Amino acid sequence: MTIRTIDVRERVMAKNDEIARTTRERLAGACVPALNLVSSPGSGKTTLLERTVKQLGEELAVAVVTGDVQTRNDADRIARYTDRLVQAVVTNGACHLDARQVATALDAIDLHATRLLFIENVGNLVCPASWDLGETAKVVLFSVTEGEDKPLKYPRMFQVARYVVFTKVDLLPHLAFDVELATRYVRQVNPTLQVLRVSALTGEGMQDWFDLLRSLAPAGQTA
Amino acid sequence: MTIRTIDVRERVMAKNDEIARTTRERLAGACVPALNLVSSPGSGKTTLLERTVKQLGEELAVAVVTGDVQTRNDADRIARYTDRLVQAVVTNGACHLDARQVATALDAIDLHATRLLFIENVGNLVCPASWDLGETAKVVLFSVTEGEDKPLKYPRMFQVARYVVFTKVDLLPHLAFDVELATRYVRQVNPTLQVLRVSALTGEGMQDWFDLLRSLAPAGQTA
Repeated sequence: MTIRTIDVRERVMAKNDEIARTTRERLAGACVPALNLVSSPGSGKTTLLERTVKQLGEELAVAVVTGDVQTRNDADRIARYTDRLVQAVVTNGACHLDARQVATALDAIDLHATRLLFIENVGNLVCPASWDLGETAKVVLFSVTEGEDKPLKYPRMFQVARYVVFTKVDLLPHLAFDVELATRYVRQVNPTLQVLRVSALTGEGMQDWFDLLRSLAPAGQTA
Repeated sequence: MTIRTIDVRERVMAKNDEIARTTRERLAGACVPALNLVSSPGSGKTTLLERTVKQLGEELAVAVVTGDVQTRNDADRIARYTDRLVQAVVTNGACHLDARQVATALDAIDLHATRLLFIENVGNLVCPASWDLGETAKVVLFSVTEGEDKPLKYPRMFQVARYVVFTKVDLLPHLAFDVELATRYVRQVNPTLQVLRVSALTGEGMQDWFDLLRSLAPAGQTA
């Protein structure tokens, strides 16, 4: 039975990867880089997106796809900050977004009027690591209220990501969290990860984040 | 293919539930209540267990099974505070503990010399909700550094739990987190949940937590 389970799982994953490849070609064809935001629940994905969309939504013609297990709360929060399209996917209990859900959500977005796409995944440090959505890169949010050893304990997510964003750094004076140690663990798992530190609350480090996003979005494609 | 996947998944779950039933009988036979600790990664499961084992490890003859995706870090941390048996399960990438892993870990624990068992699940607010381990009750740890709407966004976990423990409440003065609102969301999803508030760092609320544990552990079974 174990073998049969793996067999079925592999076929489901293969189908997912096929859809993800199509999405990747579709996004490349429209010159839209797509960032897949992943993290533990409560690490600040939605708050970071709120501030990002408020600041750069128009400038970078941002579109957003949010994934939630059961509510549309995140999409509703982000929609308060932008007239740009926000597509909400409810996974109905599933622990991650899959490529088909994202492909369907993209049907409702005018990609040729978009310069940068965010996909906010379900809050989960395990499952979303295995599901390619066709994104350009995964961004792991790592709240400084969590333990420094998250990269060691959830290595796959840090291995498949391109960026790590330490969030809630305004709380550092009140925590025993050792950023240098956490950064060493990050590099130990994946030496090529680019690391940023932000507080969406105080704005600390947000300029670096915005600069990164500006460097990713192609020039001259403004809606 | 979807139907076949569901079919296989249902059979895997049925086998899991069968093992969980056997574990539940085995624990009941030895009069050992078992608490399955679940939460987002970084909500403080291990720190709460460290303090609990330090304070009550001998008194309540505590045993611990920890589940981690890739490391034994949590088990090693807890083992510094107790001579009692700590069993580490590495799920090798899986997003939750399953009943067979727990049953195997219990083989190495003398249940008749144990009055209270903790199972520290993988940090994940979605998947562990669906996997019965044979525990007496699930305890959801809810860090006040997360958003108040976690119960609405991950309702199943709060529905299948018996206790919610707000953690890291020492940080409340530095956060916009509204405990009353979060508690309302908790009750909205599951009105019968018993709610506690603790800081394993400052000790705030820990007495209530210890009192709860003492009330659960059967009297006169000390090792």
